[in-house]
Amino acid sequence: MPKALITTVPFADKNRQPLDLLEQVGIDYVINPLGRKLNADELAEMVSGFDVLIAGTEPITEKVMANADRLKLISRVGIGLDNVDLLAAERRGIQVSYTPDAPAAAVSELTIGLMLTLLRSIHLSNTRMHEGGWYRFFGRRLSEVTIGIIGAGRIGGGVIRGLAGFGVRHILLNDVRGHPLARSLEEASGVTIDLVDREVIYQRADIISLHIPLTAHTRNMIRKAQLLKMKPDALLLNCARGGLINEHDLVEVMETGHLSGVAIDVFEREPYFGPLAQIERCVLTAHMGSMSIDCRMRMEIEATEEAVRCLTGQALQALVPSQEYDVQREGL
Amino acid sequence: MPKALITTVPFADKNRQPLDLLEQVGIDYVINPLGRKLNADELAEMVSGFDVLIAGTEPITEKVMANADRLKLISRVGIGLDNVDLLAAERRGIQVSYTPDAPAAAVSELTIGLMLTLLRSIHLSNTRMHEGGWYRFFGRRLSEVTIGIIGAGRIGGGVIRGLAGFGVRHILLNDVRGHPLARSLEEASGVTIDLVDREVIYQRADIISLHIPLTAHTRNMIRKAQLLKMKPDALLLNCARGGLINEHDLVEVMETGHLSGVAIDVFEREPYFGPLAQIERCVLTAHMGSMSIDCRMRMEIEATEEAVRCLTGQALQALVPSQEYDVQREGL
Repeated sequence: MPKALITTVPFADKNRQPLDLLEQVGIDYVINPLGRKLNADELAEMVSGFDVLIAGTEPITEKVMANADRLKLISRVGIGLDNVDLLAAERRGIQVSYTPDAPAAAVSELTIGLMLTLLRSIHLSNTRMHEGGWYRFFGRRLSEVTIGIIGAGRIGGGVIRGLAGFGVRHILLNDVRGHPLARSLEEASGVTIDLVDREVIYQRADIISLHIPLTAHTRNMIRKAQLLKMKPDALLLNCARGGLINEHDLVEVMETGHLSGVAIDVFEREPYFGPLAQIERCVLTAHMGSMSIDCRMRMEIEATEEAVRCLTGQALQALVPSQEYDVQREGL
Repeated sequence: MPKALITTVPFADKNRQPLDLLEQVGIDYVINPLGRKLNADELAEMVSGFDVLIAGTEPITEKVMANADRLKLISRVGIGLDNVDLLAAERRGIQVSYTPDAPAAAVSELTIGLMLTLLRSIHLSNTRMHEGGWYRFFGRRLSEVTIGIIGAGRIGGGVIRGLAGFGVRHILLNDVRGHPLARSLEEASGVTIDLVDREVIYQRADIISLHIPLTAHTRNMIRKAQLLKMKPDALLLNCARGGLINEHDLVEVMETGHLSGVAIDVFEREPYFGPLAQIERCVLTAHMGSMSIDCRMRMEIEATEEAVRCLTGQALQALVPSQEYDVQREGL
C-alpha cells in the first residue's frame, strides 16, 4: 500500500476532502504527529518508507532525502520552494510539485489588511483600549502615501489590484520582469506603475511591501544599511518569506525608534518567539497569509490530487518549472 | 473682537492652517482646555461670550445654548448631528453648518481595515504573538462571505467601492433611499446590490457594517433580539455612531460566545472605558474613523472657513439642510 506523509499543519482541519481523496484510492497516510513545523532532523527520522510527502515549509534537505528510501514526489502545499533542495531532489529522481496559484488571493488580502492596520494604528489603539486607555491616533490613507511594492507576481499583482479600489493611482514597483509585466499590471489595475530600483523604493516609499521568493539573491536583502535608508516613519511589510529581512537588524533598528511600524507574517524560524514581540509597533501574525479557509482548502486539495496522480500512475500536472531549479543552481 | 470656541480635540495638531485662518481676520479663539470630549455642563459653563463654536461630538443642548449669549454659528467638524439640538438652535436663531464630505474616505478605509482585521484575526494573532504564543488562525476572504451594509451614504458607498477591489461581486444593502441609490451604487462599483430589510441582513450576513446616522429611529436599533438573530460566527462593525448598538446587550450576548468578532470605533460615551475591553474578540479603536491627516485637516479647514464667513459677513456655504431638522422634529 502506498504511503503519504503529510507534514504541513493544520491539514484537513476544516474539511476532510483531502483525506477522502487519499482513502478513495487506498493511499495510507500519516499526519505530522508533532503538530508544528518540523526541523530537518525530525523529518529525516520520519520520512523512511513514505512514497509521497505532502509538504509545508519545513526543510527538505539532502539529509532528509538520504533517508527517504521510497520517496517519489514532494508535493508542496503552497508556492515557496526555498525549503526544498530542488537539486538534491533532481539528483535522486524525486519529483517536486507545488500549488502556485491557490494562496495568492488570501495573501494579497492579508497584506492590504496589514497595510490598513499600520496606516491607521488599529493594533496600537486596540491594545491601548484593552488596557483601559483611550487615544485617538492620526493615520494616513492609502491614496495619500507612496507605496513601493517589491515583486509583483501572483501576490504582489493582487495587492496592486486591491489598492486600486482605494483610489491609489500610482505605485513604485521593483520587479526583475521589468516593463512587460508593469504594462500588463497597469492594464489590469488602472494604477500607474513606476518601475524603479529597490534603492529608490527604500528611500521614497511610505509603505514598502515584499512579495518575492527567498533565494540566494534575496536572502538578507534588507539589512541595517537598507533599513536606515528608509524614511523614519516608513511602514514595512513582509508577508512573503522569513529571511528576506534580517530580523536581528530589524530589531536593532526599530529599537532606535526608526520606522513607524512593521507588519511581519513570516519569520526566519517558525514558530517565532523572538524579540520583535517586545516592540509594540510591530504587528505580528503567525504565517497566516494563505490561511483563508477557501485558499487553504484549494492548496491542500491540489497538492493531494498531485500526490494521488503520482501514486496511481497518472501524468503530473503541477511540477515545479525548470526556472526554479535554475534559481537554486545559482546557489541558494 | 469676535471669539471662537474650538471644542473638538485634537485641533490643528498636524497643521496650524485653521488657526492661521482665524488669526488672519482677527478672530480670537480658545481651544478646549480639557483636551477631551466635553459634557453638556462643562460646555455650558464655557460657552458664554463666544460668537462661534467649532464643534466636535460633545452635546450641544438647549441648556448649552441658553448660556450662549453671543452664539451665531455652530460649525461642526464632521458629519453627524446627533449631538446638536438643531431645533433649539433654530428657535434661538443660531445657524448650524457641517462638513459632510470630508471624513468619508477615511471612515470607509478604516471600516475595510477593520473587516480584514476581523476576517483574518489579525488582532488575535498579534496579541497572541506579543504574549509569546504562536497560533495560525483560519480566516475567510471578503469575496467568500456575505456582506450586509446598513446605510450607503458617502461612507457606506465608499465601503462598497473599496470592496469591489477585492473581487466582492454581491452585497446585501439596507437603505431608506431604496432602488435609485442602489442602482447608482451598482454603476459606480460594479457590485450587484440586493436591497433587503435589516432583518434579512441580521439573519444572512457574515459581516454586518453600520453606516447610518444616530436618530430617534436608529438609537438602540441593534439590541439583544437583533444580535441573537445574527449567525453565531457573524462579524459586526460600527464605525458610525455609538448608540446604534446597545452596548450593554452587546457585552451580554458576546459573553455567551455569540458572534465571532466585532469592531467598534464609536461608543455611547466617549472616551470609552467599558466592559467591551474585557472581550478579546472585540477590536476597539478610539473614534478614529475620520482621523487620517488629510481628512481631518480638510474637516478642520472647512469648518473654520465657515466660521470665518459667518464672522466676516459672508454667505455661509455648508449649512445643514432642512431634512436634518425634520429628522429631529420627528423626535431624537
